[in-house]
Amino acid sequence: MTTFTYRREIRIAWAHCDPAGIVFNPRFFEFFDTNTWGLFEAALGVTQQDLAATYGIVGIALVDARGNFMKPVAFGDTVEIVSRVSEFRRASFDVEHRLINKGEVAVEGRESRVWAVRHAEDPEKIATAPIPPEVIKKFG
Amino acid sequence: MTTFTYRREIRIAWAHCDPAGIVFNPRFFEFFDTNTWGLFEAALGVTQQDLAATYGIVGIALVDARGNFMKPVAFGDTVEIVSRVSEFRRASFDVEHRLINKGEVAVEGRESRVWAVRHAEDPEKIATAPIPPEVIKKFG
Amino acid sequence: MTTFTYRREIRIAWAHCDPAGIVFNPRFFEFFDTNTWGLFEAALGVTQQDLAATYGIVGIALVDARGNFMKPVAFGDTVEIVSRVSEFRRASFDVEHRLINKGEVAVEGRESRVWAVRHAEDPEKIATAPIPPEVIKKFG
Amino acid sequence: MTTFTYRREIRIAWAHCDPAGIVFNPRFFEFFDTNTWGLFEAALGVTQQDLAATYGIVGIALVDARGNFMKPVAFGDTVEIVSRVSEFRRASFDVEHRLINKGEVAVEGRESRVWAVRHAEDPEKIATAPIPPEVIKKFG
Repeated sequence: MTTFTYRREIRIAWAHCDPAGIVFNPRFFEFFDTNTWGLFEAALGVTQQDLAATYGIVGIALVDARGNFMKPVAFGDTVEIVSRVSEFRRASFDVEHRLINKGEVAVEGRESRVWAVRHAEDPEKIATAPIPPEVIKKFG
Repeated sequence: MTTFTYRREIRIAWAHCDPAGIVFNPRFFEFFDTNTWGLFEAALGVTQQDLAATYGIVGIALVDARGNFMKPVAFGDTVEIVSRVSEFRRASFDVEHRLINKGEVAVEGRESRVWAVRHAEDPEKIATAPIPPEVIKKFG
Repeated sequence: MTTFTYRREIRIAWAHCDPAGIVFNPRFFEFFDTNTWGLFEAALGVTQQDLAATYGIVGIALVDARGNFMKPVAFGDTVEIVSRVSEFRRASFDVEHRLINKGEVAVEGRESRVWAVRHAEDPEKIATAPIPPEVIKKFG
Repeated sequence: MTTFTYRREIRIAWAHCDPAGIVFNPRFFEFFDTNTWGLFEAALGVTQQDLAATYGIVGIALVDARGNFMKPVAFGDTVEIVSRVSEFRRASFDVEHRLINKGEVAVEGRESRVWAVRHAEDPEKIATAPIPPEVIKKFG
């Protein structure tokens, strides 16, 4: 578990909610995605839009995502999403997200991503590459 | 033109962008919708989620929306959306939105909405009702 | 594993794709949600919009969702999503989704949902209820 | 007014609806965008994903969009969206969309788009180019 933590507050908007008046689940995955970008920006000190060019990668491509919806999150609620990298492997990593509402964890999320580069022989394809040690170090 | 103005800053996320790397147009209408809720909350001093119950309405239903996309807005940009009611009529009103990016107006939006109540004879249907003068007064 | 299977074909639209030109992951969870509604409609012979009223429930509330993104799915691709209930428990069930692109499984999804009713003592809250045997039987 | 017409049927999903149980307005602009791509594909006989490369353009960039929401469209409704180019100008054109629900026009939309190419001197920028006569001719 790394120690660098990124927090973002979100006001739940009408736009996020479904006919039951609560957040429609795909929105949570959108929230998680945005937090992962924010986490990398904050940890690495590189803007989101410059991340790929700075490290010569295509991106931090998602290979697995999971959400556990424990308590409803409703229109007007102000929530905080707390994110950090739970594990770095050679060319992949996991990000853990906790959405806090009214003092309790309402949703837990987890993403697995790879450090993605263009394939050496077929630039139309994607390959994975080792995550630079100096990147990992910045997450504590 | 009323004088009460609501401003919200948004960081353009990967989630908002299309294959051209710029904001996908329906997202602007989402931004406008969220700003209208924020504008009413700020002007009236009633939370978004309590607005309908406080005034005995079903909502502030959209009947017309327009966006004029003058300059591209890209991943990572920090923009400000400035909103105010441009006109109140008996039972309807217009909201004007300007999205500012790098010091320039990049997108202009306009929404027409009605003060919507349940139909007296058929509660399944919606009718319009006069906007209370004390509501209008709070917008300056 | 039940045997009733629901299939839906989707053309991947510009609207579904991110700056990498591939489907933005929350869209897959949206596709899965829509397929689950379609699956229940087809198996039970009750329209989606009548499902809750017909069975006296609030809905089939999502408690866990997972996606495994094995191959990219791009703008213009025509894909098929194949869905079925993998397990019914007393008051909950799992739905399994496979997204097929160019003859291969590109994405696998899994949702866990509960048969949700209003809480007997506090109608603001949700409780779970046993899934009627005649519902389960229709899934084969 | 051109004569080539494109029609697409959509089943309104839970995913499209807001806490009022009706389609959230940005979704209509998403529906319109997808229909414009479908209209060009059908009229020109070129797949959506090949359109830009075939004509040496960046895309058909949106500069203005408008929606007029006349009747609510609800969860479970099956609607048809009928689209055609209402006017071609030298380097721009308008697309008109009508959403039909239960035999009536529920929503009218209009998009203005430009035939967009890379700027000759600054490839980071976009310029407009004349729409080829053979493109216009195919819309009748």
